Amino acid sequence: MNSINIALLGLGTVGSGVKNILHDNRELIEKRLFNKTRKNVKINIGKILVKNLSKHKDIDKDIITDDFNDIINDDSINIVVELIGGKDIATNYILESLKRKKHVVSANKMAIAYNGEKIGLCAKENNVAFMYEASVAGTIPVIRVIEDSLTANNIYKVSGIINGTTNYILTKMTKEDLSFDEALLQAQNLGFAEADPTSDIDGFDAMYKIAILSNLAYNVNVNLDNIERITLKNITADDIKNAKAKNHVIKYIAESEFDNGKLSLRVGPKEIPLSDPLAFVDNATNAVYLYCDKAGRILLEGQGAGSEPTASAVIGDILNIIERRF
Amino acid sequence: MNSINIALLGLGTVGSGVKNILHDNRELIEKRLFNKTRKNVKINIGKILVKNLSKHKDIDKDIITDDFNDIINDDSINIVVELIGGKDIATNYILESLKRKKHVVSANKMAIAYNGEKIGLCAKENNVAFMYEASVAGTIPVIRVIEDSLTANNIYKVSGIINGTTNYILTKMTKEDLSFDEALLQAQNLGFAEADPTSDIDGFDAMYKIAILSNLAYNVNVNLDNIERITLKNITADDIKNAKAKNHVIKYIAESEFDNGKLSLRVGPKEIPLSDPLAFVDNATNAVYLYCDKAGRILLEGQGAGSEPTASAVIGDILNIIERRF
Repeated sequence: MNSINIALLGLGTVGSGVKNILHDNRELIEKRLFNKTRKNVKINIGKILVKNLSKHKDIDKDIITDDFNDIINDDSINIVVELIGGKDIATNYILESLKRKKHVVSANKMAIAYNGEKIGLCAKENNVAFMYEASVAGTIPVIRVIEDSLTANNIYKVSGIINGTTNYILTKMTKEDLSFDEALLQAQNLGFAEADPTSDIDGFDAMYKIAILSNLAYNVNVNLDNIERITLKNITADDIKNAKAKNHVIKYIAESEFDNGKLSLRVGPKEIPLSDPLAFVDNATNAVYLYCDKAGRILLEGQGAGSEPTASAVIGDILNIIERRF
Repeated sequence: MNSINIALLGLGTVGSGVKNILHDNRELIEKRLFNKTRKNVKINIGKILVKNLSKHKDIDKDIITDDFNDIINDDSINIVVELIGGKDIATNYILESLKRKKHVVSANKMAIAYNGEKIGLCAKENNVAFMYEASVAGTIPVIRVIEDSLTANNIYKVSGIINGTTNYILTKMTKEDLSFDEALLQAQNLGFAEADPTSDIDGFDAMYKIAILSNLAYNVNVNLDNIERITLKNITADDIKNAKAKNHVIKYIAESEFDNGKLSLRVGPKEIPLSDPLAFVDNATNAVYLYCDKAGRILLEGQGAGSEPTASAVIGDILNIIERRF
């Protein structure tokens, strides 16, 4: 019996999802691992890092901690799963973990968009894995499809709906004739938008994600300052109506193109004709097109956020590391 | 420099595509392999098996052969790529190659639908890889997504459009009001349908593919006799019209469900409401839904056939084997 110990950094929406799935589907997961590796592997949550210990009194004291040092100094931890979000502290935790020869899985779009190259190099230098499927488009396996399936292709364009909040707002504005403010308020009440919605509404979230996809698809290192970024908040009910009159809908689109070494990236509202499947991607669903010179255009669609959909991507990465590295 | 020698069994549509892509994108492919493995790998087509040598006088005599023994007896061949189609001879070639410790990539839905379990066991016994992404839905990476990305999930339903010929015929019947016979003739003239279209029209092709997907998704071994299979050829212009009147379109759908150990599989024409993205998947495009207990519903869409789209999937498999096994 091979025991793999993982540490969760953060026990919010996604962390709880990871814990739940490992509980609900443990038998299935360990059976799949056995079928692939012919090894009996048991996956253990060895440590969980939280901010406030007093909120987690139900969890075993040997497991829960508010001190990151308890995790990197624990030699039994094989894989660190970074789910705290944000840029600098998270990047630091990721790099420290890699340097201690721990594999890392992260769902952190901001840290990876800014520091992905540095993190990737650090992983290679320490001969450990760094995986980040959950950082873009929730459960949609777009990272692995680019990295493992489309390897024979020049990918020359990536575009899609990769922010759930703006798509939810636009869906409500289009289908229920709500104003931007009404739709935003509804999204906030239902938990689809944050109290401070700037990161979604002004396109930062989509910007991080299209940078990550572009870096991988084109093998470049995007400077975030070079991404054109247009806020959603100036879109009015009239804009929606005018688009409808042309058989169009407005969607918040992230897109990038790479042509003869020239890279262009943009996130912002865009009119999409009803002949395009993206026009029908509603609410918090995400969808990504990958344009390839040999495979043609591939469309991937699924849940862009949520506890268990995102955790499904995190666990997919964990299992891949176990399969390839243990 | 690590040289990997592959042998192509068959140089038809897909085999030529493999040859072309390895020519066009060689630099890109070898760079990607280096980035992943830190090894300089050169991919060589070492042998090509054809039926009729006289048709291939342009190919080096050391490479081209009409004798399979030239391939399995060649110890320099690392990976055999089976693209001859059909059941028994292909299965035999696959098994013989595996027994000689050669990794195998196959695009052969029929051989895998009938003999996939036996082939998989043989690969495991001989500690070599068997991969078959191109056998289902052309370029769409549905096999890898099930196998590597959705591993945390119980998949309980698979459905979609996975036969290009029937979808082309139905698209023409729906959009251009052609009769079944007119649409079939057009598909044949354009090369979307075979001279003998039975395998597509009567659902054998879709049946093989849904069996392969179901075996993988549910970890079962489907008996093909248990798949309900309805021909397309009884669909009339009136059926199409009646569907339209209900805001439906008729699509040729392959679907399977696995519920509490109970498996059901069906291929045949089905009315799809316009609220379903499948209603807009036209001509030779394929699309597959995967229903998962944690990730929700994932949709994958792309080219279901064609020389380079299918070859893209074949080469993706070849590169995966090189990355993991060399």
